[in-house]
Formats: sequence, structure tokens, C-alpha cells
Amino acid sequence: MNHAGEQGTLFVISAPSGAGKTSLVAEMLRTDSRLGVSVSHTTRPMRDGEQDGMNYHFVSREEFEAMIARGDFLEHADVFGNYYGTSQVWVRETLGKGQDVILEIDWQGAAQVRRLIPECVSIFIVPPSAGVLRERLVGRGTDAPDVVERRLSEAEEECRHAVEFDYLVVNDDFQVALQDLLAIARSHRLRMEAQQVRYGDLLARLSQRA
Amino acid sequence: MNHAGEQGTLFVISAPSGAGKTSLVAEMLRTDSRLGVSVSHTTRPMRDGEQDGMNYHFVSREEFEAMIARGDFLEHADVFGNYYGTSQVWVRETLGKGQDVILEIDWQGAAQVRRLIPECVSIFIVPPSAGVLRERLVGRGTDAPDVVERRLSEAEEECRHAVEFDYLVVNDDFQVALQDLLAIARSHRLRMEAQQVRYGDLLARLSQRA
Repeated sequence: MNHAGEQGTLFVISAPSGAGKTSLVAEMLRTDSRLGVSVSHTTRPMRDGEQDGMNYHFVSREEFEAMIARGDFLEHADVFGNYYGTSQVWVRETLGKGQDVILEIDWQGAAQVRRLIPECVSIFIVPPSAGVLRERLVGRGTDAPDVVERRLSEAEEECRHAVEFDYLVVNDDFQVALQDLLAIARSHRLRMEAQQVRYGDLLARLSQRA
Repeated sequence: MNHAGEQGTLFVISAPSGAGKTSLVAEMLRTDSRLGVSVSHTTRPMRDGEQDGMNYHFVSREEFEAMIARGDFLEHADVFGNYYGTSQVWVRETLGKGQDVILEIDWQGAAQVRRLIPECVSIFIVPPSAGVLRERLVGRGTDAPDVVERRLSEAEEECRHAVEFDYLVVNDDFQVALQDLLAIARSHRLRMEAQQVRYGDLLARLSQRA
């Protein structure tokens, strides 16, 4: 259903790496057709098998910086020398069509988005224990100690910002966490504010005999 | 799970008669064990098959009025000469144990509850069309015209207050409406405020290596 004036909801989802966010979001998108995901812009080189416009919008550093200067990004970050950003135009247009949008970004991106779109709904996903997180980040022990160390510090830093989010989902059982995320998305569509746009006529007819 | 300090959520559910509220709430209670329902006090006579403390707490008019005077009720109403009310003590104690509570009351009761427990979550259920509502209320045509007329006016009056509620659920397909209601209940348990009580230790451990 898509009524004039119906606004989609922007869901911002963050997590420390190792929490299972990417698999959960992929499954959310497969399960709930009303959810769409934003394709980020990046300056990092395209990898084998990637497609421009599909995995990322691949742009040059100059183009990216021009976009920053124009205020085109809802959020952007420089990650080890490569830029990543979310197009503000695309997100606002998609929400304006009544479609919900998921952004998978880190806590700093989430903070930028909250300033520009305060009505966004933010969700933080955590693993069920610090031990599980550590195991997943340390991996098979083939990575250099400083790489592992950096991953752990980043995950801890990310988790220190969990309380800034609207919802917390604990990914102990994948299916339970998935149902949690879908329930959050579903319930936001049922808020009176959103439903009044869809069902204003029905409410009027129910309140007053023709 | 029930952690010290965990507070349940109070869900207030209203609807015009004929919207299917009672069946939906009964199914919610069967499906989600974390939900409980408040047993109202009433002064109306017990009917065959009813049990005191199960369907209602049956009390005398004097007892009921003494309870009103003591401020024992979260909400109460006089419906055609019989009192109906929700015990404030029971609701607050149950919420204090971390259990969610559903109150099935009308818009006037909902307004009373909002004043006393502003953090309650209120849900309004409507049928999919005015025609469906009319059919259900007119019934098999065996009721006196003035009885039908009164039912219709009450339903319209109830619907005029829909916009005061937090959520709107349209009961077109019973299973869809049920899943909507369960999603609202589930999502409220996932709010950061509630989750911090349950998972404060986990968040602390994830943010800082032991």
C-alpha cells in the first residue's frame, strides 16, 4: 500500500563486528518486502564480482569530496583512507515514497543521521557475551595480533555507544533476533501517526454515519 | 527472564464493539506467555458458568464505592447501572514483577489510565470498513431498533477517540491483526530503556575488556 503523504521509516542499525548484523539485515530484507537498503557511495576500488550501483556507488575522491561540500551525504566517514557515505537525496526520496529504509552504519554515522533525521529509529545489535564476540573477532588465529587488537578496540568503542540507540537486540539465537528486528519494523508502521495517513478515510467513516 | 528492577509494560487496548478485540486479545494471551490480563472488579451479578476472581472480581456496590473513595481503581465506569473497574494495586504490582499487562477498556478508561500511567502503550483496533462494523452490530436483525441504534452510536463515539491512541491496528485478516499486536508487544520489550535493565552487565562487559 502506498498512500499520498505516507512517509517511510528510516532504520539505522549498528553493531560491533562479530554481532551478525550483516546476515540479520540481509534476512530482514528477504523477509519484509517493505524494507529497502541504501547503497553507499565509496571511493575504495571495486573488487572482483562487485557491481557499480549494486554493492556500492563507486566514485572518485574528487567526486566524493564535491558531494561532501554540497551536503549530499546524510553521513559519511573516512575508513583507513577510503570514504564511505550515504546519499541524503536517495534516502529522503525513498522515505517520501512511503518505503522504509535500512542504513547499516557505525555509531558515528548513526549520530550524524540522528541530527539530520531525528525521527529515525535506531537499533543496536550485540552478541550474547563478550566471550562470543572475542572468539568471532580473534577468528582462526591467522591474523596478526595488532589486527586482532584493533578489531577488539573498535568493537568495544562501538558498544560504548549502544545506549544512544532506541532498541537493543541480542543476537543469541539468529531466528529470535531476526523476529525481534522484524517486530520493531512492523510496529513502527502501526504507529497512529503513520496509520492516520493510510487510514484517515476509514477512521472518518467509522466515526460518523454516512 | 525476570531481572530485578525490570518493569512490565501496560498495554491498553480499545475498539468499537464488532472490531474483534476480545478474540484478538484472547489469542495474544495464548501466544505470548509474557502477557497477562487484568481481571476487572464489577458489581453486576455473576452469570451461570462465571467464577469469582476468574472472569471478574464480583463485589457489592458498597465495596466498589469504598474502593473508588480509596483511589483503588486505575479506571472505572458505570455502565447501565453496573460498575466496572481495574485495580490499581494489582496492575502496579504485576508490572513491578516485570510482567506485561493488557487492559481491555473503552476510550474513557484509556484516558483515565494515561493520566495515572503515562508510559502505558495504547492500541486501537478497528474493523476494515464501516460496512463490516454495521453488519456486525446490526447482527441477525433480531434486536430492537433502539438497541441497534445505541450500539452504532457507541461504536462511532469510540472511533472518534482512535487518534488519542499510540497505535492503530486494522482487523481485516485476523492472523495479520494478531501478528501486528504481537509485534507491538515484542518491540516494546526491546526498547533500550527496558533492555538496559536486563542487559546492563552484558553491555558493560562488551564495552571494556576484563
